[in-house]
Amino acid sequence: MAIKIYGIPMSTCTGRVLYTLKEKSLDYELVPVNLATGEHKHPQFLAKQPFGQIPVLENEGLTLFESRAISRYICDLSPKGEPLYGKTPEDRALVEQWLEVESQNFNPPISTIVFQLVFSKFRGLTPDQEVVESNLKKLDSVLAIYESHLASQDYLAGSFFSLADLSHVPYLHYLINVAKKGDVVTSKKNVSAWWEKISSRPAWQEVVAAAAAAP
Amino acid sequence: MAIKIYGIPMSTCTGRVLYTLKEKSLDYELVPVNLATGEHKHPQFLAKQPFGQIPVLENEGLTLFESRAISRYICDLSPKGEPLYGKTPEDRALVEQWLEVESQNFNPPISTIVFQLVFSKFRGLTPDQEVVESNLKKLDSVLAIYESHLASQDYLAGSFFSLADLSHVPYLHYLINVAKKGDVVTSKKNVSAWWEKISSRPAWQEVVAAAAAAP
Ligand SMILES: N[C@@H](CCC(=O)N[C@@H](CS)C(=O)NCC(=O)O)C(=O)O
Ligand SMILES: N[C@@H](CCC(=O)N[C@@H](CS)C(=O)NCC(=O)O)C(=O)O
Repeated sequence: MAIKIYGIPMSTCTGRVLYTLKEKSLDYELVPVNLATGEHKHPQFLAKQPFGQIPVLENEGLTLFESRAISRYICDLSPKGEPLYGKTPEDRALVEQWLEVESQNFNPPISTIVFQLVFSKFRGLTPDQEVVESNLKKLDSVLAIYESHLASQDYLAGSFFSLADLSHVPYLHYLINVAKKGDVVTSKKNVSAWWEKISSRPAWQEVVAAAAAAP
Repeated sequence: MAIKIYGIPMSTCTGRVLYTLKEKSLDYELVPVNLATGEHKHPQFLAKQPFGQIPVLENEGLTLFESRAISRYICDLSPKGEPLYGKTPEDRALVEQWLEVESQNFNPPISTIVFQLVFSKFRGLTPDQEVVESNLKKLDSVLAIYESHLASQDYLAGSFFSLADLSHVPYLHYLINVAKKGDVVTSKKNVSAWWEKISSRPAWQEVVAAAAAAP
């Protein structure tokens, strides 16, 4: 098994893929991409990812991009490790449902907030507070629905930790621990308990440690 | 088999699901939801879809929302009909990749344009031309990448029609045939040929005919 991931540990989308690989106990090699010098916009990288973004996976002749597609592929690759799709076709359907909620409803506001408060400075930009505030409101109303939903079950798709839960972790990590805007989470009892569970897993802690140790 | 779909034929997200069902030769019952009277925000509907949106599927005790999650579930439900995930695990991975590109890169600009030019009037709003123009530019740059990609293959994930191609059809239909903003497509040879193939399939023509016949 020689899975290659092109990306960097501090990227949220790379983090989603690395967390999945670790939960599935699969080995990989991380090939760094220098975003600062624009390596992701060079022809050699664009041949792998025509939109010029990380991460990209290479495995046994397959080149694959889009973090959620890579994570799905990893889940289907091996029965080893955590069953991130649950056990039944109905489990899998509900994992896909909440993975779509993550991608459609949760990701747009939270990625905007984290871009403004954390990553914009790498592009020499100043955060736009109005954009931050309006997206915090949107995120809060999405998480209010999670709060009701998580009143009756421990995880989004049922009683098991799944790819849908996992997929929320990288951006929540930046929102809470870096941007220090965790109020939208800590103000909600069930969402807080869920965040505690999904972020304290050894697999994620290893991703965070690797990012901290990166040059 | 008694699949129920809550939705309306003119909704793009419902259309995605109906097109999938027809390609898979599965029977279903369409249960109309009255958006005009806000039926989708009533407690009875919110119990099925907490974000108050259509479509929703019900089948054998399972309630499922998010159109792309429903379509994935339908593909896995039955070996009947068109193999919308291709044949191999690699096919499936590439279908998921392009389904993510649809959801992450294509859908945000095109849904904004179609909302502004087609659906905003149902909410008593006037289209914002600046928003339309800036999103047409974004969509054009996404489709420019499709144009290169489709130079070497007939469909997004390879030589077979897949769920990824299908998922693009409802919004392109509104953009081209209702909003009359098809230039971003017709200006591109390979994208035009692809659009011709993916929109002329009998399954989609049946969805369009049903929408036209709806009260
Ligand atoms: N939808 C893509 C998004 C990828 C993405 O936004 N990657 C970021 C890093 S987290 C990136 O490459 N940014 C550089 C750029 O877009 O120029 C995925 O999930 O893989
Ligand atoms: N991500 C959802 C989006 C669903 C959606 O936007 N549905 C629209 C109709 S196409 C709707 O219910 N609009 C009414 C509303 O949002 O209030 C999906 O793919 O199912």
